[in-house]
Amino acid sequence: MRRLALNKAKQLLRPLCSSLLTTPIAASDLLSSSSPFCSSSSPSTAMSSTKTAPVSVDNINPKVVKCEYAVRGEIVILAQRLQQELQEKPGAHPFDEILYCNIGNPQSLGQQPITFFREVLALCDHPALLDKDQTHGLFSSDAIDRAWKILDVMPGRATGAYSHSQGIKGLRDLIAAGIAARDGFPANGDDIFLTDGASPAVHMMMQLLLRSEKDGILCPIPQYPLYSASIALHGGTLVPYYLNEETGWGLEISELKKQLDDARSKGVTVRALVVINPGNPTGQVLGEENQREIVEFCKAEGLVLLADEVYQENIYVEDKKFHSFKKVARSMGYGEEDVALVSFQSVSKGYYGECGKRGGYMELTGFAPEVREHIYKIASVNLCSNISGQILASLVMNPPQQGDESYESYVDERDGILSSLARRAKILEEAFNGMDGVSCNKAEGAMYLFPRLRLPRRAIEAAAAANTMPDTLYARRLLHATGIVLVPGSGFGQVPGTYHVRCTILPQEDKIPAIVSRLKDFHAAFMAEFRD
Amino acid sequence: MRRLALNKAKQLLRPLCSSLLTTPIAASDLLSSSSPFCSSSSPSTAMSSTKTAPVSVDNINPKVVKCEYAVRGEIVILAQRLQQELQEKPGAHPFDEILYCNIGNPQSLGQQPITFFREVLALCDHPALLDKDQTHGLFSSDAIDRAWKILDVMPGRATGAYSHSQGIKGLRDLIAAGIAARDGFPANGDDIFLTDGASPAVHMMMQLLLRSEKDGILCPIPQYPLYSASIALHGGTLVPYYLNEETGWGLEISELKKQLDDARSKGVTVRALVVINPGNPTGQVLGEENQREIVEFCKAEGLVLLADEVYQENIYVEDKKFHSFKKVARSMGYGEEDVALVSFQSVSKGYYGECGKRGGYMELTGFAPEVREHIYKIASVNLCSNISGQILASLVMNPPQQGDESYESYVDERDGILSSLARRAKILEEAFNGMDGVSCNKAEGAMYLFPRLRLPRRAIEAAAAANTMPDTLYARRLLHATGIVLVPGSGFGQVPGTYHVRCTILPQEDKIPAIVSRLKDFHAAFMAEFRD
Repeated sequence: MRRLALNKAKQLLRPLCSSLLTTPIAASDLLSSSSPFCSSSSPSTAMSSTKTAPVSVDNINPKVVKCEYAVRGEIVILAQRLQQELQEKPGAHPFDEILYCNIGNPQSLGQQPITFFREVLALCDHPALLDKDQTHGLFSSDAIDRAWKILDVMPGRATGAYSHSQGIKGLRDLIAAGIAARDGFPANGDDIFLTDGASPAVHMMMQLLLRSEKDGILCPIPQYPLYSASIALHGGTLVPYYLNEETGWGLEISELKKQLDDARSKGVTVRALVVINPGNPTGQVLGEENQREIVEFCKAEGLVLLADEVYQENIYVEDKKFHSFKKVARSMGYGEEDVALVSFQSVSKGYYGECGKRGGYMELTGFAPEVREHIYKIASVNLCSNISGQILASLVMNPPQQGDESYESYVDERDGILSSLARRAKILEEAFNGMDGVSCNKAEGAMYLFPRLRLPRRAIEAAAAANTMPDTLYARRLLHATGIVLVPGSGFGQVPGTYHVRCTILPQEDKIPAIVSRLKDFHAAFMAEFRD
Repeated sequence: MRRLALNKAKQLLRPLCSSLLTTPIAASDLLSSSSPFCSSSSPSTAMSSTKTAPVSVDNINPKVVKCEYAVRGEIVILAQRLQQELQEKPGAHPFDEILYCNIGNPQSLGQQPITFFREVLALCDHPALLDKDQTHGLFSSDAIDRAWKILDVMPGRATGAYSHSQGIKGLRDLIAAGIAARDGFPANGDDIFLTDGASPAVHMMMQLLLRSEKDGILCPIPQYPLYSASIALHGGTLVPYYLNEETGWGLEISELKKQLDDARSKGVTVRALVVINPGNPTGQVLGEENQREIVEFCKAEGLVLLADEVYQENIYVEDKKFHSFKKVARSMGYGEEDVALVSFQSVSKGYYGECGKRGGYMELTGFAPEVREHIYKIASVNLCSNISGQILASLVMNPPQQGDESYESYVDERDGILSSLARRAKILEEAFNGMDGVSCNKAEGAMYLFPRLRLPRRAIEAAAAANTMPDTLYARRLLHATGIVLVPGSGFGQVPGTYHVRCTILPQEDKIPAIVSRLKDFHAAFMAEFRD
């Protein structure tokens, strides 16, 4: 039984270490330079590719083959198929609709956008509206003012032009002002790189830092699989550190140190530490003292701190507050020369949840100018991020202020969403904790619960027989029975022998009771079926 | 003298072959698997990174260091500095403004967006407008209809939600319908991958195809440097084929075959052929018979055909027409099993020029389903492209039709832009051809001229003394003297010993006479200064 669990655990972790199997090493010494373009080698391979299929799974980049992204993986593809079947043949399944609890995509589940933000976007998309009298009847006055202000910082007021590859300078300055107001420490628009959501920013940093599989990135386990996917695609090594489920997914410096030393003893050069705060998929919010220890650790060990702070507005408990790592570092007296820090932010999360707009940024501090030039160059190869996303990033960092016409409705919309999310988190957490063999930490922040499932031995055996993970078996069965889409914990990584699922807290409140009831019924039936 | 030219030529080509110096090879045999995460190796390297700076140019990914992107390179960075100086101190330079002729960014130079497209975007950004009476006074009726139609194909009408990672199915179907109408052959929405502009689509294909520096991509020289940059970043080899400047940048199959055989004899597996049609930076438009030969070549040699067709609407001569490679292949009777074909399209070019919206797509045909799944997976790691860009891509492939309220104003706007571009291309071409030692092929299409400069020996020596390329020296001097920003030909690649600059045809018509006059005066002075 222990042996079986260990084998399973290895399988569960395989997505995270896939990059090891095939990652490249720098091999300049293998190359001669007889041609300016083509490397020379044995001519015996010449013409070998002529007769094979141009593209097959056997001849594509193995890093691509090995990369995994569970948030849109097997279970979601199955869900899309079931949805198609429901449309074509209503009644084909024992549910009326698919409930996508797999991904932090609030507006797909009915959350409404913040009106002020959308007013400004519409005016910037079609600035001709600003010259027309009727516009004042349709838009709030501060949205009109803001649109003018934004257009004024855009060269030629051209919302359809490529911008500076870091983003429009005036918008970056607005974002820096928002960061400074949030943190109480100065921020500089030149440190901001606007991106199409946070994901491309993460890729950019991985591309910069990873030279070969001998370069490693410390990542939390469980982690958001963007990190494992990006490390795999860029040919590096994921160095795991485990969050402590017993202490509410606590991040322990002793564990960081242990894993760092272990990696180094194996010849891995650890380049950076990823911290997700508030946590995804765990929902934990770091305490300020803990953050200080993390900053100290990065400084002492010479690691870049990659701070995923996209859930900074999503905090649901009274006794926790979001502190940016930059604020923490500055409050410790540490400046540019002490610690290299990247903070990722996105318009997709928070109360705004504007996932489809693909806006986001990273704030880079503590990097040498010549390194920044290379980061700029990578950004410039893709020209720039989308301007609507850039505008929206400036808006979420500078929402309406007291005295603005939109202020009260903005506050109502924002607080309505956040307090509802807090209620939903609590109801779902209690529901999971009420199930046989399930324990679930509180979602202090972010948009997810990550309950642990203590599955019967026979369920684990059934999964092995079906050549799948026990939590994947659970999620697949749940989907077939209820239409609810969760992500198996194996997609995020978990302590070997433990099983989890990730569930968003995003379904609208009026749907939560039915979801809870379906989850409970399914769980009871599943446990009964596999009872030892 | 010949030797000097050769050395210069090697330098000019270096950006294109940089990937060779440092590219990785698959090295799974070097790895042991004692840990699921970290590769083992000599412990002597342990802790070695602790005391070095976390990030410096010496320890970042060498592929990033070597990658070059001239369109936003040295000259543009200098231009941004001069612009800053002009703002801070008017009169600091012998010109009033910087004229960015370096990049195909029409709206940055005053081109106005197509009204209908912007109306639809604004309505989709703020759908609450659709419920209000005043909206009918501000928007055309077909824009309102189109917005409804688009919202109806979006799950939950949620323009702020992540979409399917290929893009919203209903929009992909609309794009496929537009392609079918353009080509007269069927197209399928499932073959469309919507992306944030065409660049990420190109990266995706390079990431898929390139396993190591032993994989090559045939690229035209001169080429749009996205290709050399992307190949360098993904660790492959650029296999050049030269366009024939004498025949109006003709693409000759004999040259393709020669370079392919040469690469293969050196052990390079050539995976794909890039064709840019209409050409960037050359402006040539391929004849249909030539395209048939290219398709035949790819089929015979087992190459993926990567067709950059982003300038498909930009044709300025009566005797040339755009034919998509898919249409050409289908008209030859070739289907899915015969040739693997990717067509890239963008909302940034054409008469629309919506660069800042970052919309685009690739249409993939002839790829096995299991390969497509991996392409989908790469797309899914970034979740989806921005929804406004997706909507705009559906609009440019389905503009207003006869009978629609907007039709006439749309046609006026479109034809006004295209005919003006044709006039500007002709005036600038004639201006270049009127200069001493300059010859310039016609811009049949796209947005650029790529004149050849026959520079005096002393200018070439002066460049060598200043450790730069002769065409870079020319472009830098031009910028300092006139504020006009061109891109040196060395950024695109050119036949060794030849020198070019790329100049867009995008400045507004009323500015063209002054530009021509400044170009001519500068050129005469430059030639006089360096006369032998």
